[in-house]
Amino acid sequence: MSEAAQTLDGWYCLHDFRTIDWGVWKTLSNEERQAAINEFLGLVEKWNTVEKAKNGSHALYSIVGQKADFMMMILRPTLEELNEIENEFNKSLLAQYTVPTYSYVSIVELSNYLPAGENPYENPQILARLYPELPKAKHVCFYPMDKKRDGNDNWYMLPMEERRSLMRSHGMIGRSYAGKVKQVITGSVGFDDYEWGVTLFSDDALQFKKLVYEMRFDEVSARYGDFGTFFVGNILEEDKVNTLFSI
Amino acid sequence: MSEAAQTLDGWYCLHDFRTIDWGVWKTLSNEERQAAINEFLGLVEKWNTVEKAKNGSHALYSIVGQKADFMMMILRPTLEELNEIENEFNKSLLAQYTVPTYSYVSIVELSNYLPAGENPYENPQILARLYPELPKAKHVCFYPMDKKRDGNDNWYMLPMEERRSLMRSHGMIGRSYAGKVKQVITGSVGFDDYEWGVTLFSDDALQFKKLVYEMRFDEVSARYGDFGTFFVGNILEEDKVNTLFSI
Amino acid sequence: MSEAAQTLDGWYCLHDFRTIDWGVWKTLSNEERQAAINEFLGLVEKWNTVEKAKNGSHALYSIVGQKADFMMMILRPTLEELNEIENEFNKSLLAQYTVPTYSYVSIVELSNYLPAGENPYENPQILARLYPELPKAKHVCFYPMDKKRDGNDNWYMLPMEERRSLMRSHGMIGRSYAGKVKQVITGSVGFDDYEWGVTLFSDDALQFKKLVYEMRFDEVSARYGDFGTFFVGNILEEDKVNTLFSI
Amino acid sequence: MSEAAQTLDGWYCLHDFRTIDWGVWKTLSNEERQAAINEFLGLVEKWNTVEKAKNGSHALYSIVGQKADFMMMILRPTLEELNEIENEFNKSLLAQYTVPTYSYVSIVELSNYLPAGENPYENPQILARLYPELPKAKHVCFYPMDKKRDGNDNWYMLPMEERRSLMRSHGMIGRSYAGKVKQVITGSVGFDDYEWGVTLFSDDALQFKKLVYEMRFDEVSARYGDFGTFFVGNILEEDKVNTLFSI
Amino acid sequence: MSEAAQTLDGWYCLHDFRTIDWGVWKTLSNEERQAAINEFLGLVEKWNTVEKAKNGSHALYSIVGQKADFMMMILRPTLEELNEIENEFNKSLLAQYTVPTYSYVSIVELSNYLPAGENPYENPQILARLYPELPKAKHVCFYPMDKKRDGNDNWYMLPMEERRSLMRSHGMIGRSYAGKVKQVITGSVGFDDYEWGVTLFSDDALQFKKLVYEMRFDEVSARYGDFGTFFVGNILEEDKVNTLFSI
Repeated sequence: MSEAAQTLDGWYCLHDFRTIDWGVWKTLSNEERQAAINEFLGLVEKWNTVEKAKNGSHALYSIVGQKADFMMMILRPTLEELNEIENEFNKSLLAQYTVPTYSYVSIVELSNYLPAGENPYENPQILARLYPELPKAKHVCFYPMDKKRDGNDNWYMLPMEERRSLMRSHGMIGRSYAGKVKQVITGSVGFDDYEWGVTLFSDDALQFKKLVYEMRFDEVSARYGDFGTFFVGNILEEDKVNTLFSI
Repeated sequence: MSEAAQTLDGWYCLHDFRTIDWGVWKTLSNEERQAAINEFLGLVEKWNTVEKAKNGSHALYSIVGQKADFMMMILRPTLEELNEIENEFNKSLLAQYTVPTYSYVSIVELSNYLPAGENPYENPQILARLYPELPKAKHVCFYPMDKKRDGNDNWYMLPMEERRSLMRSHGMIGRSYAGKVKQVITGSVGFDDYEWGVTLFSDDALQFKKLVYEMRFDEVSARYGDFGTFFVGNILEEDKVNTLFSI
Repeated sequence: MSEAAQTLDGWYCLHDFRTIDWGVWKTLSNEERQAAINEFLGLVEKWNTVEKAKNGSHALYSIVGQKADFMMMILRPTLEELNEIENEFNKSLLAQYTVPTYSYVSIVELSNYLPAGENPYENPQILARLYPELPKAKHVCFYPMDKKRDGNDNWYMLPMEERRSLMRSHGMIGRSYAGKVKQVITGSVGFDDYEWGVTLFSDDALQFKKLVYEMRFDEVSARYGDFGTFFVGNILEEDKVNTLFSI
Repeated sequence: MSEAAQTLDGWYCLHDFRTIDWGVWKTLSNEERQAAINEFLGLVEKWNTVEKAKNGSHALYSIVGQKADFMMMILRPTLEELNEIENEFNKSLLAQYTVPTYSYVSIVELSNYLPAGENPYENPQILARLYPELPKAKHVCFYPMDKKRDGNDNWYMLPMEERRSLMRSHGMIGRSYAGKVKQVITGSVGFDDYEWGVTLFSDDALQFKKLVYEMRFDEVSARYGDFGTFFVGNILEEDKVNTLFSI
Repeated sequence: MSEAAQTLDGWYCLHDFRTIDWGVWKTLSNEERQAAINEFLGLVEKWNTVEKAKNGSHALYSIVGQKADFMMMILRPTLEELNEIENEFNKSLLAQYTVPTYSYVSIVELSNYLPAGENPYENPQILARLYPELPKAKHVCFYPMDKKRDGNDNWYMLPMEERRSLMRSHGMIGRSYAGKVKQVITGSVGFDDYEWGVTLFSDDALQFKKLVYEMRFDEVSARYGDFGTFFVGNILEEDKVNTLFSI
């Protein structure tokens, strides 16, 4: 058996994608629509309070294309809190006019392919990445992924040494985008259908394409990457929520 | 032909996943909602009586993410009893406000890769595992899985001796989580689309990820494991049912 | 080109799986529900008459899990008759409260991997299998399947002699379940998405799992079997139809 | 690069599969239903006129099983005409009570693996096959298919000479069914999800199974064939339309 | 790691496919329908203004078969503009009577497998292709595609030199269709589920089939191409919008 990679795990994470049922939404009066929006903004205000207290974080993005109209990404210390937030949203007025289209359950993860001898939990930078405040970047990109286990291309049969070396060079590409793209990796083995979720944030959406495409030529992705569906979107600031939902 | 593994089989098992149709549920009056909840709790009370008489067991969990809102896991001596419970739920008031999203039919199974000479049915620990009382752990993880039959990675073409040896080391990982994760394996060959269902119970959801990830580096999973969809959730105790369904 | 296997073909077969739309069904009055049930039992009575005249056969089973609530399996000499039965059911009152979930079109088939020189059509046992009266066993298991054509695991590229030898040892497993499991093989090449449908009948559902699992270690299944979705259920005798549909 | 096969192309083709929404259809009065049927028969009458003028052809079949209730197969010189027919049907009364379940866009195609020197367009038999009048056979079978491009089984990497030789022996099987099965091959590269559509016509449905099964042992299918979904049905003559839709 | 291909990127692109809900559309009065059409034509008029100012481009096509009734293809400098157009359409009257069936998010891309030393951004032809005015051709063909990463057929593991050489000969085929087919390649790595979208325009739909089929014999497609769903359609000029939607 290959030596298993050690992971560092932070906050639990829920990505919740919704489309808007515009047809029914339009049958409401302006007052009813505003009441639904205000109730939703009240939820977001509660999330803001939690974020300020550093007990979690969240991000709202509108999504381009038919896969979804908007995404809520929520970080919290426990699965119970994610479940409560999800149910609270589902019981809200606004939720009655949305349709769930995709969700992803995971936990903020750092792969510990670090040299032995270093205690990652003493590293404040690592702690900041395990319990991050999500950036307010203009754009988001989310996709789930697996490492392949397919004939000769079987990541999990590689010796630890080789995986560590491959991940190191893979990480280099990521690092070369520092300042341009911020990535949050969440692990989902045992929680959802792929092994990881990748959430990228950038003020320039083209950097998502450049980063993911460059990585695809790296052996870790080229031979071992198996990708799920991709979502891309624009930040949905609270003062834009009214614009999105206005008729 | 490779020698087939012998299995020990216990209670039949139904995993039944549902989402709540919140939009319609909210149109009911408080009294109507409470009547539906009470009727459902009456069903659960009947299941409790069966469990106390050791004629079956069950577990209720809320599920995180859009795949389902809650899961009922039911163990009974016969397929007819599972069918009756399913139909009784389907005819209930509450069921009218839920949407079936996934189900799994299987039977509690222990793989008999044990040394010859030992009669497993004389082993009270094995009997307790074939007819288990499901634990009241804080979290649940469920996924179905196959053993691969793909080119050179074909579990069913391996000699019994090699399978037994691989399963032994695989089982070691499971055992190293004793006290942290309790697993119930159910076989579903001939009953449902995968060969096994795996239901894990733990008070710490992170242990699901650690266990499944560590196993993925073991040859049994790395080369031969093919996994279906993963569900993760929080225990739904009877006094929380009202909270989940309250508006 | 490999020599094609010869087949013996009997009655055409339709497997028709339905779920019940309980929510709408419950809005009916008792009289309306009873009228729908009685009309359905009238159809079944017509099918009984056909069966007694040995012009076809049928079986009704309730299905466990969310894939379906019940299955009608119908055997008839022509595709036109199957189509008429299907349309007659679709036009019935009961059908308005059911949702089609799966169907399978095939024809009773015996693979003629028999020694040359024997004329199978002179064999009354074979004729009884081509035009069978379906058993009234307690349980049913249905699944469609293909023989693989994948790289080195390509059934259709094997020489006839090897296929015949493999099928012979495969058939041995089936025969060792004689008295416990009755199987009806239907061919569906050119009729539906898989190459065969397998319908198993038994008074002990566990025998389905034992049979299918044992066969999976046999090379025919281990290397060459590709399986579709599995359904398992309990016999729905006519006097149980009222129970199933009663509210 | 392998030399590309040359094709001969005739009329454009639309296969349009529909189920009937029986529940809503039954809520209509007899007069409303008859009006919808008559309007539909009026469309068919227009198609008959086109067929008589040899400007296209069409076929109507009822389909067995839940995949569809009936199929309209339409041949026309241009994609615009297919689009108009489709839209005209969609705007009809009958269409309101049907649900689209599958469609296929293609063009009648003959593979030109013929010896050099022969000009196929001087061959009246070939012209009759490019612009065919669809037969009024009792049964139809339709399925889309690809040629594999999978590791060593890559049709498109074979030299032209080998493909021509393989297709020749493949064609022999087809020819041995002359008089029993008529096949119309339509090409769909660039038009729909598979590379070809195969439509078989026969007065004996069992011949579909015999033909497709025999071909499956031929290397062209055994190694290189990738098949989509199969539909099988019975001719829906105009005087049977009333029977199909009558309640 | 293989050297990553450099890309040139132009306008962002949204392909938005819709079916028409004819049943509900027909319940409207002529005035209501005309109001919805006029509002939609007003949106198109705004798009025309943008196109004239060379700040974007768009194309409207009706689609043959059940996958969609029409497609809007929109090019704009930013993802935010695409999102606004999408939301504006979704809020329109017409959108209430359409159902989203497929969408694709990408960016106009030119692969820079050009000889070193040439600065593509100094090339006005390249700029015209990055910021194109979409042609008013009679027909459109759209499909998404990947380059394979499957065992020995792994595009991303090939050395740059080999990829460049393969792409050069692949490009030759495209060039031989100059004047017959115009192609717009859009990159979607990080934006949508495939790596590229291919949109072909031609006055002769048969050229789509000839081009795509000829390319399929070229190693780039034969060994490395993985294709998604194909859509084909006819130009929907503004004066034809009324015809399409008229009852």
